[in-house]
Amino acid sequence: MTFDGLWDSILDVGRDSATGGYRRFAWTTADLTLREWFAGEAQRRGMTVEEDRNGNVWAWWMPPGWSGDPVGAFVTGSHLDSVPGGGAFDGPLGIVSAFAAIDLLVARGVTPHIPVAVVAFSDEEGGRFGVACVGSQLSTGSVTPERALKLRDADGTTLADALTAAGRNPAHLGADPNLATRVGVYVELHVEQGRALDLVDKPIAVASAIWPHGRWQFTFCGMANHAGTTRLVDRRDPMLAFAATVRAARDRATTHEAVATFGKLTVTPNGANAIPSQLLAWLDARAGDETTLAAMVEAIAADATRFSEDDGITLAVDVESVSPAVVFPEAPRARIVRALSALGDVPILPTAAGHDAGVLSEKVPTAMLFVRNPTGVSHSPDEYAEIADCRRGAEALADVMADWVAR
Amino acid sequence: MTFDGLWDSILDVGRDSATGGYRRFAWTTADLTLREWFAGEAQRRGMTVEEDRNGNVWAWWMPPGWSGDPVGAFVTGSHLDSVPGGGAFDGPLGIVSAFAAIDLLVARGVTPHIPVAVVAFSDEEGGRFGVACVGSQLSTGSVTPERALKLRDADGTTLADALTAAGRNPAHLGADPNLATRVGVYVELHVEQGRALDLVDKPIAVASAIWPHGRWQFTFCGMANHAGTTRLVDRRDPMLAFAATVRAARDRATTHEAVATFGKLTVTPNGANAIPSQLLAWLDARAGDETTLAAMVEAIAADATRFSEDDGITLAVDVESVSPAVVFPEAPRARIVRALSALGDVPILPTAAGHDAGVLSEKVPTAMLFVRNPTGVSHSPDEYAEIADCRRGAEALADVMADWVAR
Repeated sequence: MTFDGLWDSILDVGRDSATGGYRRFAWTTADLTLREWFAGEAQRRGMTVEEDRNGNVWAWWMPPGWSGDPVGAFVTGSHLDSVPGGGAFDGPLGIVSAFAAIDLLVARGVTPHIPVAVVAFSDEEGGRFGVACVGSQLSTGSVTPERALKLRDADGTTLADALTAAGRNPAHLGADPNLATRVGVYVELHVEQGRALDLVDKPIAVASAIWPHGRWQFTFCGMANHAGTTRLVDRRDPMLAFAATVRAARDRATTHEAVATFGKLTVTPNGANAIPSQLLAWLDARAGDETTLAAMVEAIAADATRFSEDDGITLAVDVESVSPAVVFPEAPRARIVRALSALGDVPILPTAAGHDAGVLSEKVPTAMLFVRNPTGVSHSPDEYAEIADCRRGAEALADVMADWVAR
Repeated sequence: MTFDGLWDSILDVGRDSATGGYRRFAWTTADLTLREWFAGEAQRRGMTVEEDRNGNVWAWWMPPGWSGDPVGAFVTGSHLDSVPGGGAFDGPLGIVSAFAAIDLLVARGVTPHIPVAVVAFSDEEGGRFGVACVGSQLSTGSVTPERALKLRDADGTTLADALTAAGRNPAHLGADPNLATRVGVYVELHVEQGRALDLVDKPIAVASAIWPHGRWQFTFCGMANHAGTTRLVDRRDPMLAFAATVRAARDRATTHEAVATFGKLTVTPNGANAIPSQLLAWLDARAGDETTLAAMVEAIAADATRFSEDDGITLAVDVESVSPAVVFPEAPRARIVRALSALGDVPILPTAAGHDAGVLSEKVPTAMLFVRNPTGVSHSPDEYAEIADCRRGAEALADVMADWVAR
């Protein structure tokens, strides 16, 4: 099947026809539909499909005559889930490109001498349960099953309940002891989430590093009261300290040459004529190095604490997740750049976005390819890449795969 | 039945056992359960129950031998719905006290010479559909059926759909041409929503006026994007202008000696790693007079427009509802004060809270009684009144009722 046919086959899944945005939360109908699509594409290519203990799905293209478990495989893929109101490319582009690259190798008559896998990691965005890269983090042991199973979505459903509802056994979750032997290298192709490639007029880049990043929960607790009859001096309104913290976070990010965002918020009781009793706000913060990130978040938390004290409300700041800096290893990156020599000088770029490739880099050699995003917009219905660049991405991934797996 | 028994009989309806707060939104199961309770209490007293075209429920105690429609009735009551996370008293106290007052008159052997009604107005808080006092405003003609039926709740359900689901006919909605002839006076008993009575150590007050008040929708539109990879200078994040507007609204309220509150907010897409595309925020504003209210809201909207322009986002400010100042008429207030002479000097207080009595005052003579609230807290699970004061309230209402209706 052509790249275009593969790409078009999932464009309707989980799409809001009004906004054009996607909502493909982990273990919802949209996610399960995409998992079926994945299994179908694998079977169409004679690949064996295996769902591991953490819900990550692997499709295997084994060398002829290989017996026993795969060892030292060339693995490529990404994720199928989305943020709320996300774009079409973030995640699925890597999986569609992986199948398309295999099709290109088959068309070239390539027979692999080592196992090849396409993988779809579970719940990369954390859009539903709040923690990103749950599937890969469970497999590397970065997140324990105990913590993961207790995660709750906005409706109060735990991951354990969601897994059970999807016919999975929550008791199976846990680290994968064979990950390092099974995976020789993991190469993830992803749409770029900035405009660097557009600015230098190149279609494809290779990743150098991922900025350290994390999410922190800020819980501002005041007291609910009548919005009309409560005198200003008698109020303990948590909205005010939250608002001051939003402005302070932007100022701190500017000072630290970093980014800090409050994009998710739950207001209780959220009534037009009621002063809120509680605001739960999520800070997403990222910086060029871990020291800067820690200093910035500490400064924002101190600002928020001062604002809260001034308003007579309480504040709790809890770490939800912190991902350390990832520097992708030199050897696979150099090999990829050589394999892509037909593209001329391939830019080597850092990114501030987290990826399963970053999580896996603790245990196995990893690398990433980026496909040009002419607007730089991501996590938005407006996320976009030219189809010609997407085809180039699949061809680049095929070249890298051929270099690794061809006899 | 005693006041205490009546009061206890609805304490479990729509209550969140974790927070102790109530969620009794219009036309939900909790509301329908309370409507059944209302009909049962009326029938137990031999009163005729009638639901008018707007879903307001009336229970009639007619003079012996009265034939034909009621004219010039003494009407008392309040509402059964709540804000999200509301208290037990706001609304139901007026209805329980009304039934209890009738019981007291029956026990005293009083026979009314004019019709008496207990009324429960529909959807007073506007907690579900955003507009307050929908039931009474439809009856007076302040809100048209066309506008009311299109109101939507957070799930997108229209009032028309909610009415149909509850077995009502949306086509019946409209102004009540007989309101002014049927109602001779409307006296609403309500828990106080401030601490004025506590400060002067009195259990009961009579209302003088209601501050003008309203709700405005602020729609801040930016562009969704990745919270990690989007440079600060490239962002169009509506959270920042919203945050600045929250602070500005507080400052403007202080300057105008008024109140202004952002207590309700919808963030889209509300993802921790996504810059929001849109924030929908509701401003509740109230002031001592209409000129001050208009000037304050205009100043807040101008502030918000400036912040939005600075951040490259768009802003729309839409009026959701505005209630003019209500001055309760002198004659019924003076009569009530005389009827309550046993209580000594009864305080006469204004309030910043809207009520169906304010809406009805356009068409019929109205008055209000307030029962002491020792903390002043309202629209909160912590809303509270001493049971002894509630009993005093029911007795005061009985004294007023007897003065009006006894032969």
